[in-house]
Order: sequence, then structure tokens, then C-alpha cells
Amino acid sequence: MAGLRCMGCTRRYPLQDMPTGCPECAGRGTPASLEVVYGALPKTLQPASSGYRWGAWLPYTQGISLAEGNTPCMDLPRLARELGVRQLSAKVEAMNPTGSHKDRMSAQGINRALDVGARTVVLASSGNAAVSAAVYCAVAGLRCEVATYRQMPEPYVRALSRFGAKRVLFDRSRDRWEHVRRQVESEGAFALTNYHVPAIGSSVFCVEAYRAVALECAADACLPDHIIVPTARGDLLWGLHSGLRDLLAAGLIPHMPKLWAVEPFPRLSRVLAGAPLQSEFEGLTAQSSIAGSTVTLQQELAVRQSGGGAVVVNDAEAAKGVSQLAAQGLWVELCAGAGVGALASLRRQGDIAPSDHALLLLTARGDRDSFHVAQ
Amino acid sequence: MAGLRCMGCTRRYPLQDMPTGCPECAGRGTPASLEVVYGALPKTLQPASSGYRWGAWLPYTQGISLAEGNTPCMDLPRLARELGVRQLSAKVEAMNPTGSHKDRMSAQGINRALDVGARTVVLASSGNAAVSAAVYCAVAGLRCEVATYRQMPEPYVRALSRFGAKRVLFDRSRDRWEHVRRQVESEGAFALTNYHVPAIGSSVFCVEAYRAVALECAADACLPDHIIVPTARGDLLWGLHSGLRDLLAAGLIPHMPKLWAVEPFPRLSRVLAGAPLQSEFEGLTAQSSIAGSTVTLQQELAVRQSGGGAVVVNDAEAAKGVSQLAAQGLWVELCAGAGVGALASLRRQGDIAPSDHALLLLTARGDRDSFHVAQ
Repeated sequence: MAGLRCMGCTRRYPLQDMPTGCPECAGRGTPASLEVVYGALPKTLQPASSGYRWGAWLPYTQGISLAEGNTPCMDLPRLARELGVRQLSAKVEAMNPTGSHKDRMSAQGINRALDVGARTVVLASSGNAAVSAAVYCAVAGLRCEVATYRQMPEPYVRALSRFGAKRVLFDRSRDRWEHVRRQVESEGAFALTNYHVPAIGSSVFCVEAYRAVALECAADACLPDHIIVPTARGDLLWGLHSGLRDLLAAGLIPHMPKLWAVEPFPRLSRVLAGAPLQSEFEGLTAQSSIAGSTVTLQQELAVRQSGGGAVVVNDAEAAKGVSQLAAQGLWVELCAGAGVGALASLRRQGDIAPSDHALLLLTARGDRDSFHVAQ
Repeated sequence: MAGLRCMGCTRRYPLQDMPTGCPECAGRGTPASLEVVYGALPKTLQPASSGYRWGAWLPYTQGISLAEGNTPCMDLPRLARELGVRQLSAKVEAMNPTGSHKDRMSAQGINRALDVGARTVVLASSGNAAVSAAVYCAVAGLRCEVATYRQMPEPYVRALSRFGAKRVLFDRSRDRWEHVRRQVESEGAFALTNYHVPAIGSSVFCVEAYRAVALECAADACLPDHIIVPTARGDLLWGLHSGLRDLLAAGLIPHMPKLWAVEPFPRLSRVLAGAPLQSEFEGLTAQSSIAGSTVTLQQELAVRQSGGGAVVVNDAEAAKGVSQLAAQGLWVELCAGAGVGALASLRRQGDIAPSDHALLLLTARGDRDSFHVAQ
């Protein structure tokens, strides 16, 4: 790692934790996340012979790991026919050690926390990131404090209890962020997730973890025309974009897939249509992993620069997608099911052609979801 | 596949389904499972370039797959120090697509069911195998019928419902088997699991699936001195033994690890001490995945031929093991926790030396277990 760079103004900073993002951009009222500037990146897709498989492309190349990542790219020919595309793949992030893509961010984030001597890790999460952080903190010997909602589903509560994480309960999203801020500023805790308003992404070291998703797709020869990503504040979207961008620059992939953000009600869609990024976008949804009223610069940049966009999928369409994926043997959380609805919608609009190859990011397991679908 | 061979009398049979095992041995009151006789096996550990990774070593080399297997061999240096062994590894079978090693058997078994034109798959299971079969049957378009207990934990019930499997509820283990037998004999269903009394192993095509565990260990250079395996009727033990035996014969591994069967109360232990294999061994346990009152020839052969044995671990010791593994970030079912207790016990008895390398088979995820450990 050679330093950090602001996604907004491209200003460079020395390597450090900047949980509220670029101070220059924040000062202008347009907060922006940082990204890592790497030294020389490998010119091949050879996995590292030791440490993390994609170590050279990630912030931390050694350290605590529970065999996260390296999830399968599954081919779904039946669903491809149903939805009218040439090829449909699914990146099964549910197969990570604690059942979601968040394990990628926990592995990098917890190694960062250890590196800077933190003793407590704090985050705001409705479930998947909470359980993941709790498990990695248990391994690292770090205290884990989760700011979450009163109505957290029981399977998550049991997991947090099993791994000794502290739950702090709130009714409103912003109160959770305020708690995270206090823990960071008064107690010296290491924050995995954002607490800045207007919102930015999670810790830069966490977001960079998702670059490995792009590398794994390239290494598995699963480079689609479109990648469909359930999104709250765009950590996964940006990590994907960052990885794909560097792979393209290194000549390791021939083209940039279009990135499509799936959201439960219009947020990013409205920003792409001209609304200010820093607005509040209220909406209700059972897609708890991608709820929230904010849009971030990282997610706007990721979809714009790839030529993609945003797709709204409501809870009923998402539930239909969950059932369609279950018929392929994949039980995913509600927002991952929304990816199927997004693909159907993009096909109808002509944004995805019958000759295209699309990839669904199946972000997490469905068996902890509080949303029950009538059979 | 060149045919079948009886594990007991070594008689050869043409390739077929023989759900009640070798008729010769059954006639003598000493029922025995069959194993597959393979044609030429590969002389290297190169994964197959298409189809299943270890296709050439398994019955079915192509077909329905949900990316089961290829689970990580994790190194647990802290727990190794705690337990007083040079090296401790864990094969994390919890990271299979539905959360248990049973996915290996479902993939092979369901492909067999399709191959013979079955329309219904039936099995007796307390949870893991049931969910796994339900998911693979959903993908294959087969009906799935699970003979199980009334008190099946809610997470399993939800999963069976999600994947449209039929639950048939019983109070006693034998009534489940009787139901499976009726479905096979009257309805032409394909049985994944045993229904013969005295007991034998599951369908030969299912048991062979576990050979891949041995191949993955060899390919990952994780060849321990001891492998510790929670066991009911020994499908996993035999598959491991079979794979290791063939790897040794091919010169692909330098020695045969000792296989240790973990059981919740004395069953195999008593057989190894002289009790008749066909006895009933009653006992109560919360280790539901390895409950049951029977011993099979396959498990006796696997431990005897490897120079290992059987270790009894009660529920309290198993729960302690679950907590010790949780501190390493691994949340496993109760009987997988028992593996830790077994290792401690084998160290105390001197069966495992401080200079040895041991491998724990972590058979399934812990978050569906009905056993709750007070924190």
C-alpha cells in the first residue's frame, strides 16, 4: 500500500485510518471515501503462494483468516432460459464462513484493527456484518460491539451471543451511527462501518476487501457483461469496481462489466436522475441488508464509470427471486433474491440483451432472514 | 466403476443398487455394505479439468452439483497448544453449500437416483442429511421425503419447507427406517440412507462420495497422523478410509492416518472390545447427528484397518469442545465439538503423542443445533 486517495477530489494522503473520509471534500459538504493506492500490482492472476490468495491485490496479505472468499461462480442455465439471457452465473457469497460477503471485509478490517492496536471493534449492522465481525473479533481477541435494531432476527442474536459480541439496541439508523461515532471518538474503538452524515462507505480497509470478488471472477473465467449487486452504501459495488478497473488496466480482463445497483426503493436511481447525493431518501423494506436512506459517492461512481445504473426491486419481487433461486438450490437473503427481479427488469428495459452474460451477487444466506415467504 | 464388492466377504457384484447390502452376508446374519470397484484410478492428484474436481475417484463425474466439497483444511495453532499436539487442523465441512458434509453424499446420491430413473428420494435423518437432500432434490426435480423425529429443530423444519420436502414424523428411529423400507419396496423410491436391521451404511453411491475428503486432504498437503470423525453408522469414516487406502496404494500419500470414531455413548467401543456387531446399544444424547443404537461393519473396518479406534465423548464434553472451537471462529454442531473432547481424551491415554498432527472433521454448522450452551 503506497497511500490513500480520495475518490472525489483525487487528493493523496498517507496511509492511515480516515473514518470520516476526505476532509477537503467533507468541508465542501460532499463527503467522499478514500481508496488505497497500491504499489506495483501483479501482472498475472497467479494466486499468492502463501497468505491470502489475492494478497498482493489487498491491503492485508497475511493475518487472521477463516478461509473467506474463493466462493463459487455457479452457472444457472435453467434460470438463464427463464430470464432470457445467454448465460447467468451466481457468485455464491452465502458460502463464506459466516454465510455472507461481509467475511471478506471482516478479515481485512480486523487485521487493520489489530495493526493499529485497537482493543474494541464497533459497527452498525442489521445482521450479516454483525455476526461476521463478532466471529473474527473472537478469533482476534478483540471486543466487538454491534449497534443494531431491537427487532434483530433471532438467528443473528444467537450468533452474537455465541461469539460474545455486545449488542447495543436502537430504533433509528442514525442513533446507531451516533453510537459508533461516540465509541470511536471517546473510547478509541475501531469502526468497521460508516458513521458520518452525509454517508460515506465503510473503513477503506474493509471496502478494499471486495476487490477479491473481481479477481476471483477473472481467475475463474467468469467475466460477465453485467454484474448485479444488492446495495445499501456501495462497499461491495466499489470494491468490485476497483478490482475490475485495475484488472482492465493490467490487461488481465478484456472489458469492464456494467455494474447494476439493486435497491429496495429509489435512492441511487434518483441521484442518477439528478437528485443531490446528500439527500435523505426514505423508504420501508424488509430487505434489511440494503435498507437505509442514504446514497454514497462510491456507489454512484461505481455504476456511472462502468456504464451501469440502479434498479429498484420491491419486496414482493425480491421474494419471487428468492423462490426462483431456491429452485436452483440456492437459499439467499431477500435482497439477493431482488437481483433476479433486477435482471428481469433490465431485460424488459433492454439494458441487458438476450445475448448477454449476467452475474448475480448472492450476498448472504437466506436462513437467518426475518422475511418469511408463504409456500 | 467396474462393479461392486462386499466389504465383508469380498464377493463381487455387477454395478447396481443393493440397499440391503450383500445378500450372502445378510443371510449369515452379518450384514455388510458394498463398495465400488473402480477401473484404473489416476496416478496423480491433478483435479479433473471438467465435471467434479475429483471425478475420476468418485461414482459420478458429472451432474448436479452445488459446489459441495473442497472445504478448507484450517490450521488451529492456538487449540493445538491448548490440547498439546504439534499440529491441529480442521476440515470445515460446515462450509458446504447447505452447511454439512452431507452435501457430498447428496450430490452423488441424487445423480444416482436420476440415473436409475427414480422420481422420489427417501431418507431417515435428524436434520443435516434431510436439508441437504431436500435442496439437491429441488434442483433435480425429484420428490424428497424425509422420515424424521417430531422434535426436529425449527431451522431444519424451515429449510425443508423452503425446499418443498415432505416430512414424515416418528418417535422411534426404527419406525423411520421402516417407513423408508416401505417407500423403497412399495413405491420404488430411491433410499439415500440405510433401512436394514441390523444396520449397514447408506447407499454405496452416497458413501463413496466421502472419498473426496481424503483426496482434498492429500491435495492440500494436510495429511495428519490422526483423523477424528464424529460417527453414527460410519459413512464418512468408510469413505475416508476408502480414499486414503487407494491414495496409499497409488503412492500418493506416504502413510495411513489413524481413524478415530467419536461416539456419544459406547457402541463401537464395545464392539472393538468384543461385543457382537449386531447388538443394540442404547443411550441418550443431544448429539443428534450421531445418535442411534447400531454399529456397522464399515465403521469397524475403517477404524481397525487404520489402527485407530473409538472414543466416547459425552454431551457436556462436546459442549466444551463447541466453545473451544467458537474461540477459533468455528461454530459447529455438538458432535463436531465432541471431536475436541476426543482429542483431549486420546492425548491423555497416550494414543496421540505431543509430536503428532491431528485433524478434526467438523461435520456441520452449529447454528441449527437444538443444543443451547449457557454462556
